[in-house]
Amino acid sequence: MPMPHGVKTDPEFPIPDRMQAWVLGNPGELSMTEKPVPVPGKAEVLVRIDAIAVCGTDLEIIYKGPPALIRGQQPFNMNFTPGHEYMGTVVALGPGVDEYAFGDRVTVEIHAGCGQCKRCREGMYTACHNYGLNYGDKNKGHRANGFTTDGGFCEYAVNNINTLVHVPDGMSDEEATLVVTAGTSMYGLTEVGGLVAGESVAVIGPGPIGLLGVAVAKALGAQPVILTGTRDNRLEMGRTLGADHVVNVRNEDAVEAVRRHTGGKGVDYVLECSGGASGLNDAAKMVNRGGKICLQAFPGEPVPVDVAYLVRNNIYVYAIRGEGKSGTHRAAAFMEQKRFDAGLIHTHTFPLSEVPEAVRHAKDRVDDAIKVVVKMR
Amino acid sequence: MPMPHGVKTDPEFPIPDRMQAWVLGNPGELSMTEKPVPVPGKAEVLVRIDAIAVCGTDLEIIYKGPPALIRGQQPFNMNFTPGHEYMGTVVALGPGVDEYAFGDRVTVEIHAGCGQCKRCREGMYTACHNYGLNYGDKNKGHRANGFTTDGGFCEYAVNNINTLVHVPDGMSDEEATLVVTAGTSMYGLTEVGGLVAGESVAVIGPGPIGLLGVAVAKALGAQPVILTGTRDNRLEMGRTLGADHVVNVRNEDAVEAVRRHTGGKGVDYVLECSGGASGLNDAAKMVNRGGKICLQAFPGEPVPVDVAYLVRNNIYVYAIRGEGKSGTHRAAAFMEQKRFDAGLIHTHTFPLSEVPEAVRHAKDRVDDAIKVVVKMR
Amino acid sequence: MPMPHGVKTDPEFPIPDRMQAWVLGNPGELSMTEKPVPVPGKAEVLVRIDAIAVCGTDLEIIYKGPPALIRGQQPFNMNFTPGHEYMGTVVALGPGVDEYAFGDRVTVEIHAGCGQCKRCREGMYTACHNYGLNYGDKNKGHRANGFTTDGGFCEYAVNNINTLVHVPDGMSDEEATLVVTAGTSMYGLTEVGGLVAGESVAVIGPGPIGLLGVAVAKALGAQPVILTGTRDNRLEMGRTLGADHVVNVRNEDAVEAVRRHTGGKGVDYVLECSGGASGLNDAAKMVNRGGKICLQAFPGEPVPVDVAYLVRNNIYVYAIRGEGKSGTHRAAAFMEQKRFDAGLIHTHTFPLSEVPEAVRHAKDRVDDAIKVVVKMR
Amino acid sequence: MPMPHGVKTDPEFPIPDRMQAWVLGNPGELSMTEKPVPVPGKAEVLVRIDAIAVCGTDLEIIYKGPPALIRGQQPFNMNFTPGHEYMGTVVALGPGVDEYAFGDRVTVEIHAGCGQCKRCREGMYTACHNYGLNYGDKNKGHRANGFTTDGGFCEYAVNNINTLVHVPDGMSDEEATLVVTAGTSMYGLTEVGGLVAGESVAVIGPGPIGLLGVAVAKALGAQPVILTGTRDNRLEMGRTLGADHVVNVRNEDAVEAVRRHTGGKGVDYVLECSGGASGLNDAAKMVNRGGKICLQAFPGEPVPVDVAYLVRNNIYVYAIRGEGKSGTHRAAAFMEQKRFDAGLIHTHTFPLSEVPEAVRHAKDRVDDAIKVVVKMR
Repeated sequence: MPMPHGVKTDPEFPIPDRMQAWVLGNPGELSMTEKPVPVPGKAEVLVRIDAIAVCGTDLEIIYKGPPALIRGQQPFNMNFTPGHEYMGTVVALGPGVDEYAFGDRVTVEIHAGCGQCKRCREGMYTACHNYGLNYGDKNKGHRANGFTTDGGFCEYAVNNINTLVHVPDGMSDEEATLVVTAGTSMYGLTEVGGLVAGESVAVIGPGPIGLLGVAVAKALGAQPVILTGTRDNRLEMGRTLGADHVVNVRNEDAVEAVRRHTGGKGVDYVLECSGGASGLNDAAKMVNRGGKICLQAFPGEPVPVDVAYLVRNNIYVYAIRGEGKSGTHRAAAFMEQKRFDAGLIHTHTFPLSEVPEAVRHAKDRVDDAIKVVVKMR
Repeated sequence: MPMPHGVKTDPEFPIPDRMQAWVLGNPGELSMTEKPVPVPGKAEVLVRIDAIAVCGTDLEIIYKGPPALIRGQQPFNMNFTPGHEYMGTVVALGPGVDEYAFGDRVTVEIHAGCGQCKRCREGMYTACHNYGLNYGDKNKGHRANGFTTDGGFCEYAVNNINTLVHVPDGMSDEEATLVVTAGTSMYGLTEVGGLVAGESVAVIGPGPIGLLGVAVAKALGAQPVILTGTRDNRLEMGRTLGADHVVNVRNEDAVEAVRRHTGGKGVDYVLECSGGASGLNDAAKMVNRGGKICLQAFPGEPVPVDVAYLVRNNIYVYAIRGEGKSGTHRAAAFMEQKRFDAGLIHTHTFPLSEVPEAVRHAKDRVDDAIKVVVKMR
Repeated sequence: MPMPHGVKTDPEFPIPDRMQAWVLGNPGELSMTEKPVPVPGKAEVLVRIDAIAVCGTDLEIIYKGPPALIRGQQPFNMNFTPGHEYMGTVVALGPGVDEYAFGDRVTVEIHAGCGQCKRCREGMYTACHNYGLNYGDKNKGHRANGFTTDGGFCEYAVNNINTLVHVPDGMSDEEATLVVTAGTSMYGLTEVGGLVAGESVAVIGPGPIGLLGVAVAKALGAQPVILTGTRDNRLEMGRTLGADHVVNVRNEDAVEAVRRHTGGKGVDYVLECSGGASGLNDAAKMVNRGGKICLQAFPGEPVPVDVAYLVRNNIYVYAIRGEGKSGTHRAAAFMEQKRFDAGLIHTHTFPLSEVPEAVRHAKDRVDDAIKVVVKMR
Repeated sequence: MPMPHGVKTDPEFPIPDRMQAWVLGNPGELSMTEKPVPVPGKAEVLVRIDAIAVCGTDLEIIYKGPPALIRGQQPFNMNFTPGHEYMGTVVALGPGVDEYAFGDRVTVEIHAGCGQCKRCREGMYTACHNYGLNYGDKNKGHRANGFTTDGGFCEYAVNNINTLVHVPDGMSDEEATLVVTAGTSMYGLTEVGGLVAGESVAVIGPGPIGLLGVAVAKALGAQPVILTGTRDNRLEMGRTLGADHVVNVRNEDAVEAVRRHTGGKGVDYVLECSGGASGLNDAAKMVNRGGKICLQAFPGEPVPVDVAYLVRNNIYVYAIRGEGKSGTHRAAAFMEQKRFDAGLIHTHTFPLSEVPEAVRHAKDRVDDAIKVVVKMR
């Protein structure tokens, strides 16, 4: 495939003109089609996708459409390729790129901010004010893989170099797809405090972000780390990932248990990863005065919140989106250093041809699935 | 009155043994009684109270009892003296105090932390983990004037030197009682960002904290500052204090107005000072992506909150209590430099003998009262 | 002039193909030549330059060559146009730009980071790791006007929209050239603390940055602000700009004077703007324990520093370059709000044809020149 | 021994009236004497000392006198007991203390701030503005063990509860004496950035603070961590504690080596722990643009510093004193979690009767001594 002026390709690795790609149809439908292989621009590379994990947000998009639709963009769910937790191999370099080389294994975070708005100038690229503006006259260069631009359930994807993280030799493709999940947990901990060695953390909800939240908190030295949830097998996995205490909320009151495990004081930080209706209120009762809460999940509908309790106890609430502040790089460092085994949450693997089956396993938690990975080769 | 060893008194200013003090009775009752003049300890001074303003929280305490009751303390609302927005003159010095001298005019912030807990060690003394523990075996030295220790509707009060702010010569007693209110607004702005020159701020609710929130935001260089509320006379006062735009929510939708005044973008920061049921949701819709909200008031009951909106837009919510992080000192500096006229919100004055009437004016907004001050002399 | 695809130009304002531009020759030489009018790219605009001030750094570049030379670039001082403190009118928009419109008056900060490096991702675009890389194969998009790309002693300049600040109607062209100087002072104060209302600041050196440092510190509510220097007329200007105390170091010891004006305690912050050999040591002796120093100037040679004093007193030293962290926007807001009269430091004006004379006045302080402005029309 | 009202003692552990204590004489002299066992006040406990390590600063004090002398205090080196890196067992509780119980094993940080000054109110208790003021009329409650109050080369010491850290069961007395050293390294890393996972760190000087600086940086996930020094055996120990690269500066240029190990870029952070004359300049050349340096040691005399290099590269320098910002608690958590083996740097042990011999080993590095511990029982 001829690439435009300035793009460098590896002569030993010919890139085809077209590729296989899964695309959205009506809600809940995915179909395989062919698309042109995209071309990297300035500060971008072309990644051959080697593996991609299914995220809960992918299910939202597949069943309800991409969030950018909300912003009045053209309805692009027809022919849109979802998926954002992917990793792969660098096979072409956009003009001027020398930060990466052919053959580099990379994993990918979601957001490339526009670089020009107020938030990007502050380093808050996940809150880019030009979110979704990467088409036509309004192209500000913002990209959110699988949200506002084509994602990774296909063979090749273009990525801004800002979104890339080197994958070390010792890390498998499957594990590398989990870096962005760990990076999201890291971003949450970064924003609520960051310096958590010796401080106490509760994590509500043992989904992928909650489980890696436990792992990252422990890697940062938090103590104790308490995980609450409803499924014993996931709670046990949390214990393996570093939780000092686990609480099955079917058996005991979560708030009381957290208080008991902290000598009655409550914890310094709560990561609310359940999206449950009482998540924020429970979190507020778990933290001590002056404590901080990170919301990394949310209920579908407005829920009653005891705002007075927050004010009286000087509690700060950080509602975060994605994996900002270079959290993926920091999480990847811990994973490279083998501080925790993120691979534990990887339960199922499918080939590219079976994406709908992978999605079904993730959605219905078939066979107790946690992280389902699509492995290309 | 003989003071214990180490306490210094001014020979030219004899201190009586006993003083007049208003005390709580049953809910809503205040009665005048006599109490011993208290004695300053280490790092404390005795302040002769010269003026005290009535705060909305005082009304809560007078009608519902002090918050420390919640913590299972002995029921001390019988004989407890409320009031925390006071200023006065230093008339005795506890052992070792040389930071203040006889005759110094001082205004007083509420919270003296214990100095030993995790939060105090971080400089978050308003979130002291020993809140309320200043009695008997559990005396950790925490004081919150008029909340957990006797307050200022009386003639003399002991204060930790941490709570004192010098009153400059050119500032009246009445204006000096407003420093803590401005300090609360300053604390809110400090926590949400602090560096607000050229950034946009909306303030919901033109009560005393909201009005001085406008003044402080403008003094810090915020632009535009938008005030929303229901009463035109208070909105006009907000304009005088620096609001670039005011919005009467009886006439137009507050969120739409804020968006319109910011070119459709929304503001960077919202101070929610209304305590209305939709306060937090409105604030969320007013801020732009990545923006920050400070809650300085709250509804009495849990209210429905659109948590998903917060997460999707990476919004941080700072629920603050009181006037922390030395905000009073910073606010006092602006007031000394005549950056705004806090005295505008002072509408009524009563003598000490008429505290119940002062309270009634504040509670029922008699004659459009905003800040009601009790002036001792 | 035909502009490339995607660039928008104002039909009512025809842009010529070529323009007049001053260029560097041998050290100390400037000559007028003709250059093509440059073309704005993505996220860039073309600015017609209306006024430009002479900065001390311009003199460095004119007499010693641009700093990028140090980095082993090709010797581009032949034909290079210096100058960075300029303002003007937007006359063409690069592809996709809608943040600015034809006819907008803008003033310009120096640094547009690459947007991809570690520092840019943190919001530290003035410390871009791709500094100087905006040519040939290594074009990372970094620009530093008048340092690594052509500057403003000419008729037109391309600018990344990240570097633009709107100029309000009430602000003269001359005053608008001073925004970047005030922004540098603001950046310094931001990094050392930011929340300086009621805190004490000393400024060493009444040059343009020091004088506006006084003005900005005072606008932020600092108290007292103390200015030290050797020239009474500049110290008096500092007083007009808000200094509470001025100290002529020919008459008294600067450290002793600062201590005296702060009750023996020393100040919380020092802005060292003199570049004197004893600047850092003097600053260290002026601050109190735990205080902070911002270095905004420097001596030409290594100087003896009492490192032990810094460590024993837990002093932090922030050596800053330029006007980062959007300080220009914050400074411009203060200037728009008329908090201080930056125009006071503007002493001389010349037309474009007399740039060498403007430079001579700035260099030799002819006629007590402080800020010399070249006004195009 | 009868303790005053409010002090609680353990009936099973009788406390003697008097104790053995080493005291300073003339420079370099230490003699054993008897002193009264001190009595804990409010917020204080009495600690029976079980072990104490010798710090380089102790040698300064023993040979040159305590630093408080500089501040014009009475000459208290006669009869003053030095030593600050101690741990022990709680044997008496001051009035109101319930944070600790009889028999608790605790290790001790140096500084208890006054709790009232500007810095203490900010959480910067190691930069307390009432440093040294804990005697007579000027008693502000500040304590710096072994610097301004009697230290730990004796049998019992009073400590503010703010200075205590619980020692877990699995940690030996000897290892517990090293917590404050690790806490100092942690404080340095906290102030320069804190969130160092995946970022690069160089440590200059493999003394105790440098070696534990390597360990703490690695525990926080830094990568790579590079240690420079002159002694191979210590560099090897650094490698065992986690250094990815070690550089013997007798064999290669330290700056070049650091650049080489970071792909030419330089590191993000430098901990300068050598106190060498070129320490700060070398550190500046090792960090990348926008990087940060922590000074934890210093040369005895002023040294030439290239200030221009700092400014041109936007480098921040944090000169720190001691173990602030609760770094000891965070370091202790890592040590409890066995993230690194601090005990590696402990090389020699002596009984209380042989303190002068212990001091000699530390001072002259007899038998390659690194950390020399005095073990009481």
